[in-house]
Amino acid sequence: MKIVILGAGNVATHLAWAFKEIGHEIVQIYSRTQASAEALAMQLDTDFCTSTAQLRQADMYIYALSDNALESIIHQVNFTSGIHVHTAGSVNINIFEKKSGKYGVFYPLQTFSKEKEVNFSEVPVFVEGNNSEVTETLFELAKNITNKPFIANSDKRIRLHIAAVFACNFTNYFYSIASEILESQSIPFDILQPLILETATKIKTLHPYDAQTGPARRNDTATMQKHLEMIENEDLKKLYANLSLMIAKRYM
Amino acid sequence: MKIVILGAGNVATHLAWAFKEIGHEIVQIYSRTQASAEALAMQLDTDFCTSTAQLRQADMYIYALSDNALESIIHQVNFTSGIHVHTAGSVNINIFEKKSGKYGVFYPLQTFSKEKEVNFSEVPVFVEGNNSEVTETLFELAKNITNKPFIANSDKRIRLHIAAVFACNFTNYFYSIASEILESQSIPFDILQPLILETATKIKTLHPYDAQTGPARRNDTATMQKHLEMIENEDLKKLYANLSLMIAKRYM
Repeated sequence: MKIVILGAGNVATHLAWAFKEIGHEIVQIYSRTQASAEALAMQLDTDFCTSTAQLRQADMYIYALSDNALESIIHQVNFTSGIHVHTAGSVNINIFEKKSGKYGVFYPLQTFSKEKEVNFSEVPVFVEGNNSEVTETLFELAKNITNKPFIANSDKRIRLHIAAVFACNFTNYFYSIASEILESQSIPFDILQPLILETATKIKTLHPYDAQTGPARRNDTATMQKHLEMIENEDLKKLYANLSLMIAKRYM
Repeated sequence: MKIVILGAGNVATHLAWAFKEIGHEIVQIYSRTQASAEALAMQLDTDFCTSTAQLRQADMYIYALSDNALESIIHQVNFTSGIHVHTAGSVNINIFEKKSGKYGVFYPLQTFSKEKEVNFSEVPVFVEGNNSEVTETLFELAKNITNKPFIANSDKRIRLHIAAVFACNFTNYFYSIASEILESQSIPFDILQPLILETATKIKTLHPYDAQTGPARRNDTATMQKHLEMIENEDLKKLYANLSLMIAKRYM
């Protein structure tokens, strides 16, 4: 399949590589920012463009763009050829509906950073097409790169995305907070690796409700009080108090 | 070494097994709750008691008790023999100071649930003694069961504990929230496993600051707004808004 990738960020980069590795042809990278388009195109040994007027003919156009940019770019593109899909968790398929033709969604449920390789075969991918033929094509494409292809409508997808924000984005932010607490004491962050890994793996065998431990779970008010007294940052103090209360209430 | 374990909860259970497996003798389990004491003692094929007056002679008394119970139990125990140590992250060593004799702290930095085995050799253990001889003995004992023994004073230990609350307890709570969002849509929670595992492992090679992704990181206000509109629970809505703001501010 000939594929054009619109976008040159984390998702664009990882998807482009995943498709290239199983033999699809990435014919072009589009990005408004020339340096980004050029860098990714060079990696992939392909062409790039910075204007939608220069987009090449392809079987598939993958819009791996920020949600803010997506609508205006879609508006500019001619849909006469190929299937047009976006990769956003929280953008409804009907963003394409003023266009006639074939369109859909190809949403990989994973955290991507350019600097970190990902084993795509384990990444769940949720597809949705504007008709059953498109859905089928997208499902087959997903099956090419992952063992976990799924069909999901836009309503289900946004809920998956919200769940992912809690399970991944907010979680990573807490790793950041923990790293700052340790670094302020000259304790290397990697001391927490076994704990972080165990927390992430124990829920394979225990439901997170049953896996919960810690002062709030035990309603250990003495410990929570000591912690609150030691946390200097007011935002963190409030966050600690609020989350502890939410956890404690759930186990009362 | 002959060891008495005071407590029969998650930490007591895992420590007792770790010591037994490398050849120490668990001579007795104490718990105020007979059923708990008896259950753990049976597992370990040893004795139990429910009154501190019945405690046996041993080389080491390990108080793996809730922080609330710790002080009153210590008060009851006669310190004429052995080394007395607690396992709490946030309790100062000086809780023992009205007692003469040998005492200290043996703090394993891990999340323990009775139902889940843990590879103790990877668990960081932080020890502190009331004199260098006790510290040395505790450090050697830690070295018996883990590749990651450390000496840390009470101030450092409480900060480790606070960091662990963010990196583990609050994180697991977010797994719970995510599971509820998915279960309300009849989506199985294990769809999030690859994401959760990647989030926990990418920070081995990227600092969490650099590993951050998601709507708040990109300041993608449209997506955050959609998510807030879909989250019905008021506490969760506030939590989402608050955390997103904290993340967005950090990357401005």
